Amino acid sequence: MSGSSDLIALAERVLKTARRKGFTLVTAESCTAGQLAKILSEAPGAAEHLHGGFVTYTKDQKTKALGVSAGLLRAKGAVCRDVAIAMAQGALVRSPAQYAVAITGVAGPDPDEDNNPVGLVCAAVASETGETLHFERRYGNIGREAVCAHAMRDALAELIDAMERVKPRVSA
Amino acid sequence: MSGSSDLIALAERVLKTARRKGFTLVTAESCTAGQLAKILSEAPGAAEHLHGGFVTYTKDQKTKALGVSAGLLRAKGAVCRDVAIAMAQGALVRSPAQYAVAITGVAGPDPDEDNNPVGLVCAAVASETGETLHFERRYGNIGREAVCAHAMRDALAELIDAMERVKPRVSA
Repeated sequence: MSGSSDLIALAERVLKTARRKGFTLVTAESCTAGQLAKILSEAPGAAEHLHGGFVTYTKDQKTKALGVSAGLLRAKGAVCRDVAIAMAQGALVRSPAQYAVAITGVAGPDPDEDNNPVGLVCAAVASETGETLHFERRYGNIGREAVCAHAMRDALAELIDAMERVKPRVSA
Repeated sequence: MSGSSDLIALAERVLKTARRKGFTLVTAESCTAGQLAKILSEAPGAAEHLHGGFVTYTKDQKTKALGVSAGLLRAKGAVCRDVAIAMAQGALVRSPAQYAVAITGVAGPDPDEDNNPVGLVCAAVASETGETLHFERRYGNIGREAVCAHAMRDALAELIDAMERVKPRVSA
């Protein structure tokens, strides 16, 4: 019920990769508001490889729950590369997980309080080894659900890429 | 896409009540895994009255992200009144919100690692004034989605009750 069939298939690939490599996961979400954690939780292996997530809908929650700098949020707004990376890193240190994936964006229908356009999304992946990846996408004003679906799809693909690049944590 | 029509209507009532009373909200979820935050985020007024939430799927995440005592989790398992209250109180101090609602339960299809039966759910509401409410329900083995839907419905009703009982924070 939480996602389209391709998103569900992608979530299953994420959990399969995590299991094969011996990693556990945590999420940090703004515009997707818990949907990413929910979709991952429905994939086989979630009980062993998904620790949970953080839904930080407001700037204050990003600061209080994830330690994102209030100054950074004031200076650059909530939707930028640096905030996505800070969310992922903040989630990682507040979880036993080895990988964190973070999404912050403007789902619409209106631009955000900093006048970022609908469809702008920044995402990041952080690992306990210190590696961080990030991307910025402009999906356009295609509707809330479509913005969130695109953002989750691209973020999960990035997470798989990151996990695939490293050696397994446990022998298979 | 995240909930049935009665759940969506209930989430809208929660946000209306929060707005009328001048309160902001945060969630703490285990078995529902982000779905409660997502449903609340889709109700009008969420941008102003929902700060976010915590998805604590594993015991370790409950301890690391919400400060739930590892000893309590070992002694009583993850699904009990004391853990639900600790999750709500832990969310409250890690958020600017005045009210926290927490759900922990066994959605199934299998009993949890502590042999709690499918359908057992504990929920709690905590407020910054120190008030806590909680309930325990046994919905039976009715399927994952139905257990989660019942749990969210009952927890949101409890949250509305708690907010209705107190004086408004701001004048209307």
